[in-house]
Amino acid sequence: METSLKTATTQVNRAPKRGHYDFETVAQILDEGLVCHIGFVAEGKPFVIPTAYGRIGDKVYIHGAPASRMLKSLLTGIDICLTVTLLDGLVLARSAYHHSMNYRSVVLFGQARAVTETQEKMTALKAFTEHVMPGRWDDVRSPNTAELAATLVLSLPIAEASAKIRTGPPIDNAADYDLPVWAGVLPLMSIPGQPIADPKLPEEIAIPKNVVHYDRNLYSRHRTHSNDDG
Amino acid sequence: METSLKTATTQVNRAPKRGHYDFETVAQILDEGLVCHIGFVAEGKPFVIPTAYGRIGDKVYIHGAPASRMLKSLLTGIDICLTVTLLDGLVLARSAYHHSMNYRSVVLFGQARAVTETQEKMTALKAFTEHVMPGRWDDVRSPNTAELAATLVLSLPIAEASAKIRTGPPIDNAADYDLPVWAGVLPLMSIPGQPIADPKLPEEIAIPKNVVHYDRNLYSRHRTHSNDDG
Repeated sequence: METSLKTATTQVNRAPKRGHYDFETVAQILDEGLVCHIGFVAEGKPFVIPTAYGRIGDKVYIHGAPASRMLKSLLTGIDICLTVTLLDGLVLARSAYHHSMNYRSVVLFGQARAVTETQEKMTALKAFTEHVMPGRWDDVRSPNTAELAATLVLSLPIAEASAKIRTGPPIDNAADYDLPVWAGVLPLMSIPGQPIADPKLPEEIAIPKNVVHYDRNLYSRHRTHSNDDG
Repeated sequence: METSLKTATTQVNRAPKRGHYDFETVAQILDEGLVCHIGFVAEGKPFVIPTAYGRIGDKVYIHGAPASRMLKSLLTGIDICLTVTLLDGLVLARSAYHHSMNYRSVVLFGQARAVTETQEKMTALKAFTEHVMPGRWDDVRSPNTAELAATLVLSLPIAEASAKIRTGPPIDNAADYDLPVWAGVLPLMSIPGQPIADPKLPEEIAIPKNVVHYDRNLYSRHRTHSNDDG
């Protein structure tokens, strides 16, 4: 897609070379993340609440209980900032000053609307489940009418957004390259441990393959060696 | 410490059993995290920006370039919400509806002030470095006068905050426990990969032990088996 998601609000001012405004880059970061941070203003004060999400095309979906303080605020059509951050590594320089992190983040602005149509709501609920664990939707019991009614789903268009990405080694002062200090990147990855079966699970039920072979680092492997830094 | 960080703003309304207001719980989550999300209001709109941080006692420190749009806004003494989220696992239930995540999060409210005194500023810069990589400060070149001047450091008191924690297996509907669906928790951990030496690093400089044996999961191991859920 050729659409630019750049506006005066989303423009990256610090380290502008790290800024990206194409849909594909934004979508990949959203797809790899599991938790977003939603910012909104209530009674003049900022709130930042972590929550799960899903993406379908150019929309991000969030959900929760209709009694949720956050969702009730968002339902009024107020401005939202939705941010997803993936930490890819610690950038260890020769000087304290040039320490940094390699990361990919998306900052998305807009207003949410409630998803009321049953089919879109069900599709969004499927997107949440599949976002967390691909293949899971077909293995589990689908939401029933009562559960659908007890779930508030909001959608936010991906229209005004920016991605910010740092990759590569530290950038030290010229004089510091002579220091006898190890410098480089310590990559960090989100890695699954051994699955822990529900204590109430009958022993004969095997762990499904998508759980055993879970891999969340969808796009990050390609991003450790080059350097986007300005 | 016996201080409660609970106020009308920080009270956890949804799933109140997951709410914690003691300093120790809040501090442990802040110490394990690497990135915080800072929410603030500029021209009436919410912004959520990821950034590094450090903690000393009952203060959180953030820093950046004096030209940073966010730091310039925060310097005016506006309200801030600082959130740190640690994702501990995917909670895979027998029904789509009861899928969840195990996590630990802190939401902290307050106003930032600039750290202008040189000694406190240097101590805060040490806290940033040591927060990311314990032992690193003594191995690297300390900030010089120009770098100190080029770094804006802000502090935020840990006075009004809440932690929210979910642990343990999924909670399914009674009837769903008979379904032939694997259910349980897939733990997720932040795990370091192989350190990548800076291409400009002389070969004879060995990787330090704190980099080789890096372990970020400071407190999370104890949190996978019990169930705080209401």
